Amino acid sequence: VDDVRTWVSSYAPRISRISPSEIRERMKLVGDRAMIQLGVGLPDPSVVPYELLREASAAIFGDREQAAASMQYGPSEGYGPLREWLVEYMRSLGVECSTHNIMIVSGSQQAFDFLGKLFIAAGDTVMVQTPSFIGALRAFDSYEPRYLMLPDDSGAWESLDKARAKFCYTSPDFRNPTGTCMSVGDRHKLLALARRSGMLVIEDACYEKLRYDGATIPSVLALDIGASGDIERGRVCYTNTFSKTISPSLRVGWVVAPSELIQKLTLIKQASDLASSTFNQMLALHVASTYLLSPMQAMKRTYTERRDAMLDALRKHMPDSVTWTEPAGGLYVWLQLPPSMDGAEFALRALRDHSVSIISGQSFFPVAPDRATARLSFSLATPDEIGVGVARLAQLVRQMISPA
Amino acid sequence: VDDVRTWVSSYAPRISRISPSEIRERMKLVGDRAMIQLGVGLPDPSVVPYELLREASAAIFGDREQAAASMQYGPSEGYGPLREWLVEYMRSLGVECSTHNIMIVSGSQQAFDFLGKLFIAAGDTVMVQTPSFIGALRAFDSYEPRYLMLPDDSGAWESLDKARAKFCYTSPDFRNPTGTCMSVGDRHKLLALARRSGMLVIEDACYEKLRYDGATIPSVLALDIGASGDIERGRVCYTNTFSKTISPSLRVGWVVAPSELIQKLTLIKQASDLASSTFNQMLALHVASTYLLSPMQAMKRTYTERRDAMLDALRKHMPDSVTWTEPAGGLYVWLQLPPSMDGAEFALRALRDHSVSIISGQSFFPVAPDRATARLSFSLATPDEIGVGVARLAQLVRQMISPA
Repeated sequence: VDDVRTWVSSYAPRISRISPSEIRERMKLVGDRAMIQLGVGLPDPSVVPYELLREASAAIFGDREQAAASMQYGPSEGYGPLREWLVEYMRSLGVECSTHNIMIVSGSQQAFDFLGKLFIAAGDTVMVQTPSFIGALRAFDSYEPRYLMLPDDSGAWESLDKARAKFCYTSPDFRNPTGTCMSVGDRHKLLALARRSGMLVIEDACYEKLRYDGATIPSVLALDIGASGDIERGRVCYTNTFSKTISPSLRVGWVVAPSELIQKLTLIKQASDLASSTFNQMLALHVASTYLLSPMQAMKRTYTERRDAMLDALRKHMPDSVTWTEPAGGLYVWLQLPPSMDGAEFALRALRDHSVSIISGQSFFPVAPDRATARLSFSLATPDEIGVGVARLAQLVRQMISPA
Repeated sequence: VDDVRTWVSSYAPRISRISPSEIRERMKLVGDRAMIQLGVGLPDPSVVPYELLREASAAIFGDREQAAASMQYGPSEGYGPLREWLVEYMRSLGVECSTHNIMIVSGSQQAFDFLGKLFIAAGDTVMVQTPSFIGALRAFDSYEPRYLMLPDDSGAWESLDKARAKFCYTSPDFRNPTGTCMSVGDRHKLLALARRSGMLVIEDACYEKLRYDGATIPSVLALDIGASGDIERGRVCYTNTFSKTISPSLRVGWVVAPSELIQKLTLIKQASDLASSTFNQMLALHVASTYLLSPMQAMKRTYTERRDAMLDALRKHMPDSVTWTEPAGGLYVWLQLPPSMDGAEFALRALRDHSVSIISGQSFFPVAPDRATARLSFSLATPDEIGVGVARLAQLVRQMISPA
């Protein structure tokens, strides 16, 4: 007979992605000082603006009206003054919009879940860059889509016109896991594809501020508004977050989209968790308005040094049969291993035998995983640790491709 | 042709419930001092422990390790020390469980959404007390269940054995919107019904601490564990929150259930928003451990006075054709109006002509609304305001039942 236990057991959202217990294990490793952390992409504690957060918190509690507002239920679409600030912030990025085009979510992850809920009926086609951010795939997985690959080579995009995908998920700036950046030409081509095939573009801009070299490229959203003349006539849903620039623990992200889409997402937000914490939104506003518009020099200096240390070490130590991306921003380098190598075994042996934590590449593929891949992160380890860690990884590659 | 706009427009989760813009309008009214607030059930700002929250925040930022932990990603199941504290707290309520039985959610609302996602396929039957908390109905609505009524008269429950409902949603202590409390006998009967019909019981315990008179009644969860001997063999999923006892803006609630159910809900949490804010969970732990185990005398004194003022005013002013509940806890009184009256018109005229905000009862019914109903809340208005407001409502009832 049907019963609670059967229903619970039979609920198995595709759990091929990293499980909570795996993440818990990795979080424990973060506390292990003997381990070299090239795995998780956590922001380095040294770059979190604790002092500004402390001041913001004291300022809120020190003002009777702000304290009362901070601890009360807020509107589902988000705290008004933060949304007004984001209108100005988006304008500074070349995006003209109003508060009707902006809602607050509990991190970008929540936006992907809501977009999955709104757009995907089981069996619908969605397009994603491959490899892609695991969290977005996990959010979409719950709604059981069919995945289609958006290859990095835009020459292959013409064949996708007839795909009838509901949306294309892309993270054009220094994406997780590859660290690569989509050219302005390819952003235009993606918009043209979206127009021809009638789909939405979900633009995950979470690493947009973490550029270390070269000039900023306009967002897909900005280019779309440039072409259509008005965000209301556009077909891009832009997501961003304070997780990488202030702290992931605030759980404050935002969505910028045509107002009708924002209204539907707000209904979903209301049914899902009513609203994000007003207090956290006020903290984000206090800190962002003094911090995020400044060049964030310290954070960028730290990550640039680490990125350089990683690329130098890869050049110095890795055998010719390994190639890698050279990111101009973000937190990740993507390794292409010799075809005979299995990334999962590589990650396991690196951890067990060499005390280096990395992530196997296969979880980042929604379909047809390339197993000879791995993701390295340079966010948490010092330049010296990165040098040692990469040297050990290179030694392991040599062992694995020519076993004794 | 299919297109983004068509998909967005066609997404219409049942929006007969209160919409975000209605809530926004009501929130504005909260700032209007000429308006008597008997509508929204917001915690009164005077009972929020700002000073404890300020101290907790300062303590976290004042300790290097705590500050670092507070601003980092945390595990999807929640912050470990808070879950450990909740094991002890639940033990104080007669519930033996371990951290494997507890997860943190962003308010009870998120638990209802996750339970809907896990249990409801479109067309499945779920049982709810009627009338019920709008937020829970809204969360379930997204998954398109068929609703069955659990009447307050337990004599009628035998006929529900064959209902094949997936779960029964109940809020046994001073529920929103009626303020009524389920007797211990009925709690046992509900468990027996759940066992016979093979369904889960979702116990929403959010008002459990807000008892003003009489002795505490064991939770349905505690009774279930008493009968089965072990939470792992139970069939109750208990939800609670710090929203009513500390602040709704923390967005910290918790679920207590058999570990297999907690594991599935944790996977859903991970895909939905990764984790709740570690900082907010640390704040909740700091404040709860110094505050929640104490009798919360000030908060209870405030609400008891207001409840008494409302019941006194109803007895003094209302015509005999109106009846109401007499809650021993919670924040609400439920009015049964003369059958000829429409609660929506009553609420509209109360607001427009008498500057009293109340809520029409019909939104609280998933099916077959009783239109001659209204909900009054005594959480926000002072005893004097409550007296004036109820007198005006009584005058309006008289106008509506015998128009000049």
